[in-house]
Amino acid sequence: MQPFDLKKYLTERKEWVETALEQYFPPSSRLEKRVVEAARYSLFAGGKRLRPILCLAAAEAVSGTRQCAASAEMLGSSFQAVMPVACAMEMIHTYSLIHDDLPAMDNDDFRRGRPTNHKVYGEAVAILAGDALLTEAFGILARLRTNGMFPAERILRVVDIIAEAAGARGMIGGQTVDLESENREVDMDTVVYMHRCKTGALITASLEAGAVLVGGEEDRVADLTRYGHHLGMAFQITDDLLDVEGDARLMGKNPGSDAAKNKKTYPALLGIEASRESAKHHVEEALRTLSRFDASAEPLRAVAKHLLVRKG
Amino acid sequence: MQPFDLKKYLTERKEWVETALEQYFPPSSRLEKRVVEAARYSLFAGGKRLRPILCLAAAEAVSGTRQCAASAEMLGSSFQAVMPVACAMEMIHTYSLIHDDLPAMDNDDFRRGRPTNHKVYGEAVAILAGDALLTEAFGILARLRTNGMFPAERILRVVDIIAEAAGARGMIGGQTVDLESENREVDMDTVVYMHRCKTGALITASLEAGAVLVGGEEDRVADLTRYGHHLGMAFQITDDLLDVEGDARLMGKNPGSDAAKNKKTYPALLGIEASRESAKHHVEEALRTLSRFDASAEPLRAVAKHLLVRKG
Repeated sequence: MQPFDLKKYLTERKEWVETALEQYFPPSSRLEKRVVEAARYSLFAGGKRLRPILCLAAAEAVSGTRQCAASAEMLGSSFQAVMPVACAMEMIHTYSLIHDDLPAMDNDDFRRGRPTNHKVYGEAVAILAGDALLTEAFGILARLRTNGMFPAERILRVVDIIAEAAGARGMIGGQTVDLESENREVDMDTVVYMHRCKTGALITASLEAGAVLVGGEEDRVADLTRYGHHLGMAFQITDDLLDVEGDARLMGKNPGSDAAKNKKTYPALLGIEASRESAKHHVEEALRTLSRFDASAEPLRAVAKHLLVRKG
Repeated sequence: MQPFDLKKYLTERKEWVETALEQYFPPSSRLEKRVVEAARYSLFAGGKRLRPILCLAAAEAVSGTRQCAASAEMLGSSFQAVMPVACAMEMIHTYSLIHDDLPAMDNDDFRRGRPTNHKVYGEAVAILAGDALLTEAFGILARLRTNGMFPAERILRVVDIIAEAAGARGMIGGQTVDLESENREVDMDTVVYMHRCKTGALITASLEAGAVLVGGEEDRVADLTRYGHHLGMAFQITDDLLDVEGDARLMGKNPGSDAAKNKKTYPALLGIEASRESAKHHVEEALRTLSRFDASAEPLRAVAKHLLVRKG
């Protein structure tokens, strides 16, 4: 068997996701076109599309066969039908970045090497663009009912999973704790809580949503949810490490920005070595949760392993 | 037949809605408790609860019998089951107020006689509290599936209606146009568009959602949607008029604030007399759309008529 080519896989999937994203928020000629333009600016700002890719990969993993196709169109219709959920996850991620970058929050002027949304469109439109992306994500999920591919009951469960992960007990809660932890001593439990909510919740929800939507068996869904938790932790810890050790060119932002803002990170609390160990532990745990999956979970295994050697 | 007592009806329903709202965002002892506190601050800031009351009233109107009950518990179970949607509408309305009041938007320090959310909790938490309210609204809709009262398909249609009304083609679009119209000449079409989106969309969605959820016949749903459109216009025009002529004590804000901000209002473009005529026209049209409804639509009729004599 050929070794799994992660780079090719990620590049391909990223393109498919971006093609699919194009159909939402089409350029508008209506009076409110500016908010649509602002939403598009951040939606097409060159993200890795990690969450949608994980959502699609989870759907494949529980379906038992990896989709080997040269284009999104050649994929099975059930797999294609997961794409709107993948897009919704990317919209929620994008909205969270726009709001996080605002002057009142992290006050970032650049993201991925480009001016942040409010630097281009002003704060008011940036806030509204974030709101619009979040709202449209749920609209997309609701419209999933019209293609007849999935039972409405199952779609509602996906809405529930995503709302929970994105809400006050998930991502928004994590961001709140993050803000309040600046310039204050916090313990390791708080940092873990923050990471789990702020980054982990949406990553986990991407996997769970993809698996649930295509009708994955409950124990497999539970496996992928656990995988998501460990992947999310490993992702955030390696993100923290990159901020200490990374290459500005590959990261699209300057290293050291967490420390400059007195952000509470793993390296800041545990030191670099212990943080690396912790990331390794979470990657191992993530891989262990996939032990009952066949080759269809190979992309998920490769994504987890890759975190330990990531450069950006 | 006794004349319909609107004041009693609104007071009673307001209490039921507020009791129901209490179960969402319960005071939290978790790390993110501050965002929950901020969400609660605005959610329980003494609104009229117009949107949830309209949502419930629409459900009653299509069900054909007005619920005569001394308490929410004594209502029919189908009617009670609409309450979560009513609460979701109020959360979306509340989130929009929090974000609209931000310094980058309308920069209001007071609302309903109390300091605005960001004046109490800071801008960052205010933004997040708004985000959390919007997200929870969709979570509530998703969880409606668990009580088994309504087909999942129908709940998804409600999610769709609400996401469309709250999104870039609805409320957010209206707010964008409103912001961009400040300090700029705009024509009447723009003001109508702005009002229809900013206020009308969510009011209309409240009615449509309530009617759809309980399985109202399509032509009745369409009637109530048209009623919502006219009510929304009449509501916004009379709101504009109050800002010119109103009593600060009854309004909870100072009259003249629209003019001070150079907001584009009906009176500013049409003059007071023509604005009053327009409000009257929309109330008459709203009443006309209810012509096929029996006494079960009496609250909706009374609400529309009341707009012409409102004082706050």
